[in-house]
Amino acid sequence: MNPAALSSTIVARLHAVLPRDRVLLDPADCIAYGYDNSKRVAVPQAVVFALSHDEVVAVVQLCNEFAVPLVVRGRGTNTTGATVPIAGGIVLSLERMNRILRISPGDRLLECEAGALNGEVQAAAAEHGLFWAPDPTSLAYSTVGGNLGCCAGGPRAVKYGTARDNVLGLRAVTGAGTSIKTGCTTTKGVVGYDLTRLIVGSEGTLAIITEATLKLLPKAQTTKTLRACYVDVKSAAEAVARVMNQPETPSALEFMDGEAVQLAEAWQPTGVPAGVGAMLLMEVDGNRESIDAALRAVVAAAQGPGLVELKTANSEAETEALWACRKALSPSLRKIAPKKVNEDVVVPVTRIPELVAGLAALSAKHGIRIVNFGHAGNGNMHTNLLADPDDPAQMQAVHACLREVFRLVLDLDGTLSGEHGVGIEKRDFVGWEIAADTLAVMHGLKKTLDPVGILNPGKALPD
Amino acid sequence: MNPAALSSTIVARLHAVLPRDRVLLDPADCIAYGYDNSKRVAVPQAVVFALSHDEVVAVVQLCNEFAVPLVVRGRGTNTTGATVPIAGGIVLSLERMNRILRISPGDRLLECEAGALNGEVQAAAAEHGLFWAPDPTSLAYSTVGGNLGCCAGGPRAVKYGTARDNVLGLRAVTGAGTSIKTGCTTTKGVVGYDLTRLIVGSEGTLAIITEATLKLLPKAQTTKTLRACYVDVKSAAEAVARVMNQPETPSALEFMDGEAVQLAEAWQPTGVPAGVGAMLLMEVDGNRESIDAALRAVVAAAQGPGLVELKTANSEAETEALWACRKALSPSLRKIAPKKVNEDVVVPVTRIPELVAGLAALSAKHGIRIVNFGHAGNGNMHTNLLADPDDPAQMQAVHACLREVFRLVLDLDGTLSGEHGVGIEKRDFVGWEIAADTLAVMHGLKKTLDPVGILNPGKALPD
Repeated sequence: MNPAALSSTIVARLHAVLPRDRVLLDPADCIAYGYDNSKRVAVPQAVVFALSHDEVVAVVQLCNEFAVPLVVRGRGTNTTGATVPIAGGIVLSLERMNRILRISPGDRLLECEAGALNGEVQAAAAEHGLFWAPDPTSLAYSTVGGNLGCCAGGPRAVKYGTARDNVLGLRAVTGAGTSIKTGCTTTKGVVGYDLTRLIVGSEGTLAIITEATLKLLPKAQTTKTLRACYVDVKSAAEAVARVMNQPETPSALEFMDGEAVQLAEAWQPTGVPAGVGAMLLMEVDGNRESIDAALRAVVAAAQGPGLVELKTANSEAETEALWACRKALSPSLRKIAPKKVNEDVVVPVTRIPELVAGLAALSAKHGIRIVNFGHAGNGNMHTNLLADPDDPAQMQAVHACLREVFRLVLDLDGTLSGEHGVGIEKRDFVGWEIAADTLAVMHGLKKTLDPVGILNPGKALPD
Repeated sequence: MNPAALSSTIVARLHAVLPRDRVLLDPADCIAYGYDNSKRVAVPQAVVFALSHDEVVAVVQLCNEFAVPLVVRGRGTNTTGATVPIAGGIVLSLERMNRILRISPGDRLLECEAGALNGEVQAAAAEHGLFWAPDPTSLAYSTVGGNLGCCAGGPRAVKYGTARDNVLGLRAVTGAGTSIKTGCTTTKGVVGYDLTRLIVGSEGTLAIITEATLKLLPKAQTTKTLRACYVDVKSAAEAVARVMNQPETPSALEFMDGEAVQLAEAWQPTGVPAGVGAMLLMEVDGNRESIDAALRAVVAAAQGPGLVELKTANSEAETEALWACRKALSPSLRKIAPKKVNEDVVVPVTRIPELVAGLAALSAKHGIRIVNFGHAGNGNMHTNLLADPDDPAQMQAVHACLREVFRLVLDLDGTLSGEHGVGIEKRDFVGWEIAADTLAVMHGLKKTLDPVGILNPGKALPD
């Protein structure tokens, strides 16, 4: 269903602010900006493309004046519906604000517009031996603004942190149309309140990020891979705790439960010993001179009760062989469950065994196959409920199961999302994790930054 | 001058909330809680000691009801007047809420009350081979709540980050008396807005932190020290940039300018070559097996144009010898200027030479001796203006000079404080760094969390 058109007054005002070729009004044009990787869709009344901070200010002020919902959007790679314009209104695409404004290698910082792709930032930084830590799977085609809006992570976060840990400052526009500049250009700074991290992860509900000053890090010279297989999840989780409690933090610490390993091996055998209950894949990075010592430290920590097999790679081919089981997982999952429900819950590392055992019990109870893998060093588990969304009975079971999954995670002192965010998908469950009084404070902040409530309505926080 | 006493109604209500021995009303008792390390003083109308979160809630609600200023206080080690009750009212000391509630080594976290000392946290963590990153000079006798309130740093921040980077969640009470719980118990988490970092560094003006969940890190097995002397600041700053642009980040990267080196050597000669224009002191930490490779990498990066001498320590005695010049600096400064003005400005690393050159020019212009040292890896410079505060003419020159120092720092894209905070001292200059519109947003947030404005009035933000 197409929404009612914007009033002629608003359209005229939009045309006064932006040239006609950067204002889409035909629903047939607008629909391409109505969905994201959540597979949800809603047609906005208009799609506009800004080229500058000042144009963003003008659009926000217009929306604020006429109380028009405004959804900012990078490339729509999020999986939670965070950029679906469910309340109609205007989608503001920043994809054309994609300039890298400045890179200062000596200061390890890069300034860019919000629409710059993560991959472009990585390429610019790499020319100076630097990188930006966030490495979501989508990095080749997701924007810095989207990464910041959702506080993106990725495998590297275990050593280098997520988006919030790797941003120095922002230029942004609040829902009231006020231009703000947050943070500073240095890694230390305590003047004023930390608006930077308030806005990072707020999914475009508090302010629209137009530019960012990113903290870059020096790229390691080389990387080594190891794979450790354990009899059960408990042994693997204990190994994760040991690995994380020594100073050679791996640059990736990925986990697959037994179910995931079996699925992947059934799809394409990669030589994982039979009957493995859990697998860890680790990368260690560092200088060529010190990498072997770092690898030995991680290997020593990975060893312990329940270890079935530990392999390190000594060549590119061996590295690929060790990752093969992990790489086979996605296609194998797609084959048996093309539209799986993929959650990204987090629990403290020591609670991972309880989480996986609890998930197995819920799987049995609801008759839903559950496969777990993820970023074990952060306790961040990608929990996949395999079901056919076109089968109403199965989906009913999935939803009942999911509610119990969330209860389980919270009982284990965890959080409902580590990096995917809330968007629409988890909005109804935020109140389970965050107490009413704390939520009221968050709503108060929202009201302060976005008094009319135009910015991405219906997302991130429950009503 | 003693303030007017609290009304009998308020005193009666205080006594209803706390036993009499935890409510000080006599100005002679109260004055001990009226000053901090800024050497400023103001006598509060009452000092109260809470033992629990719920008692804090009761005190805040009372102050909110009667619009009584409320200044939360740990051990008063800050240097900016952040805990001086300039508006009178009640000082709430959390020094008796000092329990370490829980440590989970496998999850690398520690929960404690706000009054726990940083040093106690370090000791508890060290039993498990872990540490908490913030290491201000005051760590033996400053509290976790104070460290978080001011976003404390220290030398280790160059590798491990400041308070804001090493906290997972908080329990706190807003100015409205609302109990909130922020963040989570894991290193990843994106549900709700980031209230944690909004409150960290806000100097008790938004909420009172009662408990914190701290992120711990694995302690390195060993440390190596190196000292590099350069002909001038420019050569040293270039070396800092090289050191920071390779992956073996030092665990300390301290700087002294030529003036500081000469002062220290005049106090106690430690064998620094004559005519040195700048010195870097670095620590590298790591596992015993990899430390030498890490040290070599840092040594290689420290080498370059303008290097006069580079020494590494091979024993504890040699380590002490390398640090001797830095250690001699404080007593030498105390001797020639017992009441120096100590700023902690920050500039991007590549701007350090311009900063030091600019400071030399201001020193000459105003006839004020300026000595610089600090945490060079973060560009965080402790800029000491040596003058006698009892000499009005000198102090006038200092204040005139200071204004130009701040202008210089901001012209160099820097920030006025890296770790000391704003408090009263820098409040009038915040508006130079943060634009009016952004400040208005910060004031809006303050109003939302503290509607009556009771929390630490007159601090952090200008009126």
